[in-house]
Amino acid sequence: MAYALGLDIGGTKLIAAAGTPDGRILAEATAETRAHEGGIAAVRRAAALLRAAAWQAGLDPAEATGLGVGAPGPLDLRAGMLLDPPNLGWGEFPLRDLLRAELGLPVWLTNDCKAAGLGEHRFGAGRGAAELLYLGIGTGIGGCIISGGQVRYGFTGNAGEFGHMTVALDGPVCGCGRRGCLEALASGSAIGRMGREAALRGDGAALLALAGGVEGITGATVAAAAAGGDPTAAAIVERAAVALGTAIGSLMNGFGPERVILGGGVVAKADQAYLSQVADAARQAALPGCLAPVLRAELGEHSGLYGALALVWAQEHPAVGQAAG
Amino acid sequence: MAYALGLDIGGTKLIAAAGTPDGRILAEATAETRAHEGGIAAVRRAAALLRAAAWQAGLDPAEATGLGVGAPGPLDLRAGMLLDPPNLGWGEFPLRDLLRAELGLPVWLTNDCKAAGLGEHRFGAGRGAAELLYLGIGTGIGGCIISGGQVRYGFTGNAGEFGHMTVALDGPVCGCGRRGCLEALASGSAIGRMGREAALRGDGAALLALAGGVEGITGATVAAAAAGGDPTAAAIVERAAVALGTAIGSLMNGFGPERVILGGGVVAKADQAYLSQVADAARQAALPGCLAPVLRAELGEHSGLYGALALVWAQEHPAVGQAAG
Repeated sequence: MAYALGLDIGGTKLIAAAGTPDGRILAEATAETRAHEGGIAAVRRAAALLRAAAWQAGLDPAEATGLGVGAPGPLDLRAGMLLDPPNLGWGEFPLRDLLRAELGLPVWLTNDCKAAGLGEHRFGAGRGAAELLYLGIGTGIGGCIISGGQVRYGFTGNAGEFGHMTVALDGPVCGCGRRGCLEALASGSAIGRMGREAALRGDGAALLALAGGVEGITGATVAAAAAGGDPTAAAIVERAAVALGTAIGSLMNGFGPERVILGGGVVAKADQAYLSQVADAARQAALPGCLAPVLRAELGEHSGLYGALALVWAQEHPAVGQAAG
Repeated sequence: MAYALGLDIGGTKLIAAAGTPDGRILAEATAETRAHEGGIAAVRRAAALLRAAAWQAGLDPAEATGLGVGAPGPLDLRAGMLLDPPNLGWGEFPLRDLLRAELGLPVWLTNDCKAAGLGEHRFGAGRGAAELLYLGIGTGIGGCIISGGQVRYGFTGNAGEFGHMTVALDGPVCGCGRRGCLEALASGSAIGRMGREAALRGDGAALLALAGGVEGITGATVAAAAAGGDPTAAAIVERAAVALGTAIGSLMNGFGPERVILGGGVVAKADQAYLSQVADAARQAALPGCLAPVLRAELGEHSGLYGALALVWAQEHPAVGQAAG
């Protein structure tokens, strides 16, 4: 039976799977990402996990068509390298070639948000849409452009870095050092920062009660306090939702997508009110002829895994990545 | 001889030409746009102008392969309609079908900025780049996305409305009614508005001397004062250049272009200092892996005309527009 292997490397979890061309996951195996075990050890564990998934499905890992991988950026797609992604601590690392050597299979590598966008395009909320934007809202913000039914990498290989589009010229400083990036206003870490700022202003009793101290306040703390009815936390989440929706409306004006899909940890945990705030702000920012529906990712934490499998099937990968085959 | 007709409809000028597939303009004829003559009269004048260009080149207008047209938006590309572009005063108007009836030729219609982007891609500063962004900076701001060597219209047909991307959440109100659009910060009309604001603040002696009164101050007044060494005007132009460059850096992060091309009236009249300010701001806003050169359009006020001719040759036009053929 024709099947492929897929691997999604996240900041906290490795997910490996064997799957079919029509988007059926036959078997899945997961393990924690160990931040500082080093890349070589991680490649060995990932290969073992992939073999386990194949055997679980009653398949021989050596007979897979290939392996698709989604990994946190920055990446050098031509070289198949990780360029020291901050969440992993693996340094500059030839992930693609090491996985190929370990498994004896062709390997296609892409970044996690592009894998998630591709997964949603093929098997999730983006099915049937040739013009699509995906935004992953987590600790950071990244994205994926699909146009003419293809993932667009741009000339640089880095198209889709929507987290670093300026939406507030004089806004707060982003992790990247620039001012007013979308990521500095609407990511999980921005929500956490705004929570800590509220506590320092003396306006965060509920947040402090949950977190035990200012430094303990994270995006998750703010989300939990908002869900519990704390008005300060709710206002912070709404501010983030409005910034995100405004940026999405801008992107509708710029790209003309048929749909915009939102994934990532912040969205997975968000309630309907958050999604409505985002969609309302997008509606206000989009020109009348540019408005598109904003939908939640359908595949949840599996968007990237499905996209990794789709990489193998569709050979969607652009020229810059195909050297891997 | 195989040749095509091209028509560029601007707010002040109609330019008609006959040209060859390799980008040679054989003959050209121009006339003023008469704002309120009405669309039907304008179509007759444009057809006469196109016939004149063909005859000038010694060609029979009935033997042209077709006609490509760039016109101010908003447009309905599927229907080949102008949707009451504010600069023309022609209302909702079936431009494509009337030109086809008048000339007996297939007609392809696109918006002015997409025609200009296509012209630069085929025959100007964008030659050889498959991933390209074009921004036209005039009274308003529009643009064109080229990816995989093709103009991208998006699902909506309106991709490229970069003027209405939010770059300052709490910024000045734009002509479209939204806040902090790029067009409200960096267009010719924004530069004029900032000039009038400076005069009202008592800080615009040089501007008032040139314009005769606050209401007479336009973008051109500010540009002239800046060129003459007035520091207030120079600061306004720089502010506009920085906003534009920041947005361009954001677009580099979002799209990953190989080059960014700037055209339109503001850029045509700008000096090298302006272009350097734009490029510097783009460099600061772009992520290291996303930076691309910012170039001035090579074809000047003819970018759109070349693009109109290219529409016929390349059949670059997407499905939404091909009904015209």
